[in-house]
Amino acid sequence: MTSLTRALFWHAPTTQRVPRRHLHRYPTRCYLISTLLPDKEDQLVAPLAIDTAILDVDGTLIDSNYHHALAWSRAFDRFDYRVPLWRIHRTIGMGGDKLVTAVAGEDAESRDGDALRDAWTEEYDAIISEVAAFDGATELMAALRDRGITVVLASSGIPQHTENALKLLDDGEHLDASTTSEDAEESKPDPELLDKALEKAGGFNAIVIGDSVWDMKAAKQREIPAVALLCGGFGRDELLEAGAAVVLDDPRALLKDLGPVLGDLG
Amino acid sequence: MTSLTRALFWHAPTTQRVPRRHLHRYPTRCYLISTLLPDKEDQLVAPLAIDTAILDVDGTLIDSNYHHALAWSRAFDRFDYRVPLWRIHRTIGMGGDKLVTAVAGEDAESRDGDALRDAWTEEYDAIISEVAAFDGATELMAALRDRGITVVLASSGIPQHTENALKLLDDGEHLDASTTSEDAEESKPDPELLDKALEKAGGFNAIVIGDSVWDMKAAKQREIPAVALLCGGFGRDELLEAGAAVVLDDPRALLKDLGPVLGDLG
Repeated sequence: MTSLTRALFWHAPTTQRVPRRHLHRYPTRCYLISTLLPDKEDQLVAPLAIDTAILDVDGTLIDSNYHHALAWSRAFDRFDYRVPLWRIHRTIGMGGDKLVTAVAGEDAESRDGDALRDAWTEEYDAIISEVAAFDGATELMAALRDRGITVVLASSGIPQHTENALKLLDDGEHLDASTTSEDAEESKPDPELLDKALEKAGGFNAIVIGDSVWDMKAAKQREIPAVALLCGGFGRDELLEAGAAVVLDDPRALLKDLGPVLGDLG
Repeated sequence: MTSLTRALFWHAPTTQRVPRRHLHRYPTRCYLISTLLPDKEDQLVAPLAIDTAILDVDGTLIDSNYHHALAWSRAFDRFDYRVPLWRIHRTIGMGGDKLVTAVAGEDAESRDGDALRDAWTEEYDAIISEVAAFDGATELMAALRDRGITVVLASSGIPQHTENALKLLDDGEHLDASTTSEDAEESKPDPELLDKALEKAGGFNAIVIGDSVWDMKAAKQREIPAVALLCGGFGRDELLEAGAAVVLDDPRALLKDLGPVLGDLG
């Protein structure tokens, strides 16, 4: 047994014998010990324990989606684009680089994209002091770490907004690493940010906790199980359709069911 | 034939013979001509044409739900209640008299209910100028009237807010009547406001067009078919679960499919 395998067994001692021809049924997050027993017809399969929680920030840990939606709306207004708020709301969680195109079209992006993003930053900064952490958000992070899980933030937000979010989350006390839009070339729903977060955390068996369909789509592309929280204002059906494995109300609800949820998804 | 029956046939000439024992299958909005042919085994059934459209205002015709949510959030903040925005958002469309209890509890209502509503009005008034009509809203009202349908607004909003909404909707040019919270003792989801709207319109076979689960629940209680629009930010599943017969994006989408939708629901 290699030390890696020993470590895996320490985290997840449950193993089962599986006929080689059925191995394809097991998701990639199961560790297949086929290298140890190359000639056997039966293979030992150990489900990997979750070692990393990749958390989205806006709408997941802090109650900022509605402020972002209004800030974008005000930015679009400045440039005389008529964009309804529900459309903006449903694109929050996407990177700002993709949002303008998504709600106002490619012409708007090429003509005013950067100016719109500057205006959004100004408008959001004007109301950022109203944003609070969700009830249970910091306790959730602490509870994850208590279980030996590395906690890493993967936000599509710009660094100054992530910095403000960290202040609201006990100054990042229960946090091992974080990424911002600067860490990846492609923002969500591209999964690059998840890769970077996992890399920073040094983990390899993650769950994603997010509130937007963009978090779910990114996780699905990497076959990472994802928990969706309704507190960002997305609908349950949209989140399930985008790939959520579980949908719960908010951080407090996840905290309450953390054991069973991690068990089901591990 | 009475003049009433003649009028019905004029609106909806399609009739069919139905065995008396199957009459219970027909919804109340079908006019049963059993009084005319009391001794026959077969009964003539004429589906009533829709004569009245009862439209919700906030989130349905004007893009105000997110402004209302923020205004309530600011009002709650003033009194140190921590209420997440998504919870507030999902109660918009309820009467303000019920909203405080729904999101902050009975104690908050009895202690600060009226003061919170005053604060909400102040906060909403501060941003009311940012609210716009949805694309297609006034055209939808005009198209309904072009089909001989009486258009009546049934808002749970306070009179001054409804007045502002009317200004955004071509000064109410395509409108036959409107109600506000003052017209009914019980606000939505109680169906009293729908009764008052139908009474004001002088109609008796209505559809409801709204964006919130409260519109859908009120309509369901009166067995009035309801069209839900997603532009208020509610989720499709919530609206269907609350009783929506059809879910479409926004007034423009309904305008596009108005004929088939009225045909299906008539």
